[in-house]
Amino acid sequence: MAGDSKLFVDLNAVTMANAAAPYGLIENAAIAVENERIAWVGPAADLPSAYGDLPRSSLEGRLVTPGLIDCHTHIVHGGDRAVEFEMRLNGASYEEVARAGGGIVSTVKATRAASEDELLADALRRVDVLIAEGVTTIEVKSGYGLDIETELRMLRTARAIAAERPIRVKTTFLGAHATPADYAGRDDAYIDEVCIPALRAAHAERLVDAVDGFCEGIAFQPAQIARVFDVAQELGLPVKLHAEQLSNLGGAKLAASYGAMSADHIEYLDEDGVKAMAEAGTLAVILPGAFYTLRETQAPPIALLREHGVPMALATDINPGSSPLNSLLLTLNMGCTLFRMTPEEALRGVTQHAARALGLTDCGTLAPGMRADMAVWDIKHPAELAYRIGFNPLHSRIFGGTA
Amino acid sequence: MAGDSKLFVDLNAVTMANAAAPYGLIENAAIAVENERIAWVGPAADLPSAYGDLPRSSLEGRLVTPGLIDCHTHIVHGGDRAVEFEMRLNGASYEEVARAGGGIVSTVKATRAASEDELLADALRRVDVLIAEGVTTIEVKSGYGLDIETELRMLRTARAIAAERPIRVKTTFLGAHATPADYAGRDDAYIDEVCIPALRAAHAERLVDAVDGFCEGIAFQPAQIARVFDVAQELGLPVKLHAEQLSNLGGAKLAASYGAMSADHIEYLDEDGVKAMAEAGTLAVILPGAFYTLRETQAPPIALLREHGVPMALATDINPGSSPLNSLLLTLNMGCTLFRMTPEEALRGVTQHAARALGLTDCGTLAPGMRADMAVWDIKHPAELAYRIGFNPLHSRIFGGTA
Ligand SMILES: [Zn+2]
Ligand SMILES: [Zn+2]
Repeated sequence: MAGDSKLFVDLNAVTMANAAAPYGLIENAAIAVENERIAWVGPAADLPSAYGDLPRSSLEGRLVTPGLIDCHTHIVHGGDRAVEFEMRLNGASYEEVARAGGGIVSTVKATRAASEDELLADALRRVDVLIAEGVTTIEVKSGYGLDIETELRMLRTARAIAAERPIRVKTTFLGAHATPADYAGRDDAYIDEVCIPALRAAHAERLVDAVDGFCEGIAFQPAQIARVFDVAQELGLPVKLHAEQLSNLGGAKLAASYGAMSADHIEYLDEDGVKAMAEAGTLAVILPGAFYTLRETQAPPIALLREHGVPMALATDINPGSSPLNSLLLTLNMGCTLFRMTPEEALRGVTQHAARALGLTDCGTLAPGMRADMAVWDIKHPAELAYRIGFNPLHSRIFGGTA
Repeated sequence: MAGDSKLFVDLNAVTMANAAAPYGLIENAAIAVENERIAWVGPAADLPSAYGDLPRSSLEGRLVTPGLIDCHTHIVHGGDRAVEFEMRLNGASYEEVARAGGGIVSTVKATRAASEDELLADALRRVDVLIAEGVTTIEVKSGYGLDIETELRMLRTARAIAAERPIRVKTTFLGAHATPADYAGRDDAYIDEVCIPALRAAHAERLVDAVDGFCEGIAFQPAQIARVFDVAQELGLPVKLHAEQLSNLGGAKLAASYGAMSADHIEYLDEDGVKAMAEAGTLAVILPGAFYTLRETQAPPIALLREHGVPMALATDINPGSSPLNSLLLTLNMGCTLFRMTPEEALRGVTQHAARALGLTDCGTLAPGMRADMAVWDIKHPAELAYRIGFNPLHSRIFGGTA
């Protein structure tokens, strides 16, 4: 029952809170939970007597991390792109794939054709995989409707996920994801006639926690993104941006100028952009799944981000086209293997920094006052989470104090 | 109960047998099972009346493939290398890692220190992940003992897996994996005094189904491998070889000259080697997990293998150092994404061709006479198995006709 008070003992706490030890590790720790929140965490030997009488639950020496957070997903969408994947590998050109109805167009078509129930059932299959990996919070974007009705339906589906499963969902409006076929060549008209009205309607329905865009040669120009961000600002909504994935249009700088929570992808980000992010407090969201799937060769500027103190989050970017990656654990490995992040940076990227990338101040670390969202692992060292590939050592998952 | 006769209906059979349709697909199929084997498979409309009265099991329109086969694993081993993984990502050199006791030495040490029960318990955690992906046959190598006692213990552990779980295990003796520290600089003495005596002892205990080696600058020279293969030949054991992974020493050609079942890795294989394999009927075993983990840049010669008709198998190579990859489904995606194999080639690589790579003629396809080892999937198209990353759509697994 939610709200039960409890004391978890016989565990090693991978707190990820700022502390002297790597990973904020506290060995032989105890964690007291009250009202779905962490009341106390520390060495068991130091447990205040106030918590000594709480019902105890032994974790038998296991490692406990904060519940994982996937801060960038397109997990709500219709259809899949398996046949297109196969066509490409059989040598079809992009034009041939497009003529066969492939590309983002096919996902937009499938998403528009799906009811909210269908979108939800499909998304839950993917959400359940993340839950089985200890994920307790996800972000979910719209952006495959590209008409007012379907954008709203996607966001309602995202909200419905949290009603169906013990997981927290933050929604992001991504109307500026692509221009639909009926607005081909009329990007500005799409922004004015569909994207912005959809944003206002979704906000009025309280469906929007943040506003995103795709700033790229194949998507929208900075000036178009700025018009969407102006409306976000007017509505009091925080922004974030898909930026510098395939080229450098100055998207991260633009995002930083709006005080964005994050700039995402950023393979082509330069030092100026990194500095702008550092000054604005804009996080980097690193997405190795798309880099891997698209066989890109330019990695994000990890060393510059470190140097300028830009916190890095790490996410699946799960989507049917460029990143059909349904595993946040595998994302940890990809961040390390492909981008040479350290296992600690990677784990911080799906806990402490992922929370910050979503503007959440009550999760992402194990510390007093934080939600008791935790993952319990059958491992000896936290680096094992990034080291293994396609192996899930989750023992159990605790959401708001409840297993 | 094993041996029960049964008729599976309402399914699409991805037979992988040589047939006109891609994947050997038969829609609206039925599969009759008798005595743990497939008695009949074909369009349900053509079902012979002899099978009409068998007890029926509806698979509700799902796709059925042959049970998956992982034909190259080092799944039995002690310890892990997570800390070494982390050291490297924190900038430690190979020398520093070695000084800290890392590298294969650490796995040999942990394997020697582990009892058979410990090795088995550890391996079963990994085997269970493969079973959950529809894997029904695995190959397991020795090669982390590098002394007679431990090599035998590893092979006994491999045999024990099949007693503990509903999975078929083929064992491979890999004494010629590396030279242990106590034989440093005396590779030939190691081959004579440890490797060959261990092979003879293991064979006498019926622990060996095939003999393997690691032919590479950092491991053994072709002449040393040849001495091991000569003994294999004398004992009537088939051979295979880790060849051309990091350089071209002519290992695949050597293997082919012994009529090897497979040459594995083969990133640096040239056309001469491909021809030698084609002539000898030696399969290629493609191992993208090690390529990915080691961040190699030279891909195996897929086009040449196709051109010369060398069948390609695909495997995890699961091992604690260069490929801690515990997912055969993810291996399918890596084969496609990293090496541009088609989804059909990839699936054939873990069914029909994986069986051939193990010398098995009674599994790997859905055809009369084959073992009723099958995987039932919640997917619409077989390409989905390779397309998704970190998502397991297995509905159920049938081993020898039993779910
Ligand atoms: Zn995205
Ligand atoms: Zn190997």
